[in-house]
Amino acid sequence: MNSHLNRWLAERTFEAIGAAPVRIVVGNDEFSPPGVVPRFSVWIRDRKTLFELFRDPEIGFGEAYSAGRVRVDGDFVEFLVTLYESMHEPRWFARLASKWMEFVQDNSPRRARENIHRHYDLGNDFYKLWLDAQLIYTCAYFPRPSMTLEDAQIAKMDHVCRKLQLSPGETVIEAGCGWGSFAIHMARHYGVHVTAYNISHEQILYARRRAREEGFADRVDFIEDDYRNITGHADVFVSIGMLEHVGPAHYREFGDIIHRAIGDEGRGLIHFIGRSYPLRFSRWIRKRVFPGAYAPTLRHVADVFEPHRYAILDVENLRLHYAKTVEHWLARFERSSAEVSAMYDPWFQRAWQLYLAGSIAGFRTSTLQLFQVAFAGQKCSTVPWTREHVYEKSACIPAMS
Amino acid sequence: MNSHLNRWLAERTFEAIGAAPVRIVVGNDEFSPPGVVPRFSVWIRDRKTLFELFRDPEIGFGEAYSAGRVRVDGDFVEFLVTLYESMHEPRWFARLASKWMEFVQDNSPRRARENIHRHYDLGNDFYKLWLDAQLIYTCAYFPRPSMTLEDAQIAKMDHVCRKLQLSPGETVIEAGCGWGSFAIHMARHYGVHVTAYNISHEQILYARRRAREEGFADRVDFIEDDYRNITGHADVFVSIGMLEHVGPAHYREFGDIIHRAIGDEGRGLIHFIGRSYPLRFSRWIRKRVFPGAYAPTLRHVADVFEPHRYAILDVENLRLHYAKTVEHWLARFERSSAEVSAMYDPWFQRAWQLYLAGSIAGFRTSTLQLFQVAFAGQKCSTVPWTREHVYEKSACIPAMS
Repeated sequence: MNSHLNRWLAERTFEAIGAAPVRIVVGNDEFSPPGVVPRFSVWIRDRKTLFELFRDPEIGFGEAYSAGRVRVDGDFVEFLVTLYESMHEPRWFARLASKWMEFVQDNSPRRARENIHRHYDLGNDFYKLWLDAQLIYTCAYFPRPSMTLEDAQIAKMDHVCRKLQLSPGETVIEAGCGWGSFAIHMARHYGVHVTAYNISHEQILYARRRAREEGFADRVDFIEDDYRNITGHADVFVSIGMLEHVGPAHYREFGDIIHRAIGDEGRGLIHFIGRSYPLRFSRWIRKRVFPGAYAPTLRHVADVFEPHRYAILDVENLRLHYAKTVEHWLARFERSSAEVSAMYDPWFQRAWQLYLAGSIAGFRTSTLQLFQVAFAGQKCSTVPWTREHVYEKSACIPAMS
Repeated sequence: MNSHLNRWLAERTFEAIGAAPVRIVVGNDEFSPPGVVPRFSVWIRDRKTLFELFRDPEIGFGEAYSAGRVRVDGDFVEFLVTLYESMHEPRWFARLASKWMEFVQDNSPRRARENIHRHYDLGNDFYKLWLDAQLIYTCAYFPRPSMTLEDAQIAKMDHVCRKLQLSPGETVIEAGCGWGSFAIHMARHYGVHVTAYNISHEQILYARRRAREEGFADRVDFIEDDYRNITGHADVFVSIGMLEHVGPAHYREFGDIIHRAIGDEGRGLIHFIGRSYPLRFSRWIRKRVFPGAYAPTLRHVADVFEPHRYAILDVENLRLHYAKTVEHWLARFERSSAEVSAMYDPWFQRAWQLYLAGSIAGFRTSTLQLFQVAFAGQKCSTVPWTREHVYEKSACIPAMS
């Protein structure tokens, strides 16, 4: 009887998520979808856990995995890739629950500060364990797949600067500046003046100290404020990895802020995790990792550009580079698992491992995209003739040599 | 009294189109918008013509210019650039008339054939007067601005092939193949097999003869049929300068046809005249030059890609290259004006001169864009790692050396 109930729960779970080539093991019972040769074993501690997976797999898997009540045999990223490839569309109640969560986790200025605080203020020491030396928490660019993460982050920063064709003396506004590496990179290598905004208190303090220590305090202003409070005029607007936290309801407002900053003469670049079709982040990711986050399609993002007639000059999709970036992060994270467990707890360590592995799977399977969108106002006179200059060898940037 | 009426008409016209720095001359009267220093003189033959401009400038200017009842002093392209830059949004009745025309000029298969016949079957001899030697009637790509139109068209074809990373033995479906140059280029330089569709009878006959003469008849099939009747499977889907004739009501259907052809494993590229904000072609252009044509924003075009989860890999905006391309065409066209007038009549010659000059102004002022959008299915294994290969020097293509 127990086995029959377990089987029923396992079958319903496969119906909900799709016929993945997976063997579910609960005690002495094993189940897999009919007609499928299982490639992975998922060990489920008890019926309660199986019931959680059945009831709400989108949240249940992450919760049970984090709690150590689910284990997976074999390569965890490959397992998640397999799961993503066989996954169904979420059902109506899952979609409704997903929408509800978006409503609750709005990105009003107050809520945005809470959302960002929860993720980015986990402590610089935590991020130092597994990010690159400059603490860059966005997709890197690997001109050669074998290069180090450190070099690939430098190459990414330079890739963006080249696309923007920055000239000495120009002014740049950066929205969402992380620990400040890119602002300092632009000031150091391109001679521009940068005003950089961020609502993460820990990051701003770190960035200011670094600018002071490296002698750029007069050329980079780090401002602890919401992007909605950006003031002043600049030649260039740039934002790397912040749009995910803006939320589609605020894209028009975001476009207005860009236009207020750079007008019709300016140009800019927005770098963000996107989608090829509309899909929210899983509820588990929004509950535990990125409250209020949303990855838009290019259609959504038109709300930023069209109202002010910004012409899109260049879109590059770097999803394979984000898969590789997160592979580096995950490898470093796993090497630091003891420190992370000690710093927080094993639950946190497993939750973040799942988040990183799931991100790799998302980028590998084309479920997630990474877009860099360069744009220019109607009266911008700095529209590149071709993109050849982006691919020229450079002497000043070590990673490109 | 006559002068007063002329002034009233001229003032209302400026109110409607915007305060362009232009002097209107009718007989002995001259008018320009208040507070504006005129840079161009527009000679208007009679009050009837002035009344036409006042009543419906969007159609009236083109009609009067074609009839020789309006002349412009100075550089005609510069005049149109100035006009575009000062132009207002069209008023409600103009927008309504614009929408009505779109409704009448639908792109059903029968109407599409008529629309295409009217423009593209004007006679190969006509296009030979002012296009490049290979008769390529789409935006060229000028790695160096000074290169010839002939070389820039070769460079464009190669640019697209590089983006697509074509390999020998692959199959390509081309929708809207013009006089066949690109299909033959792909077969010759990349060893692929191409099936190319076009509903222009004259163009298909020309393309078939060329393929036969150059020994590619077994590697390129030219099919005289609507893109809606594309059958068979291929690795790659490509369409250069056809989307403008599809019409936004048919984008989903167009996406379905692409998906039928290349599935989730395939990749492709669509090259089209676009917009940075929604705007129809002027009614005059649709009345006299391109019935049924529409230039979409990237938001519109999402209807092609999103339903089948095609990921956009690369968008390049080549509007400056289209301005230069049409400059070449206009210069050749003007050198052939006597032949064109003899072949058709002076009305036709002036109408086409206006269309070409207006296109240059549109691309220069960022009113028109030219997008190349490369995309790939969710299971495509030919996603380029970077875009470096697009910018490598090539030995085989003369224009790139």
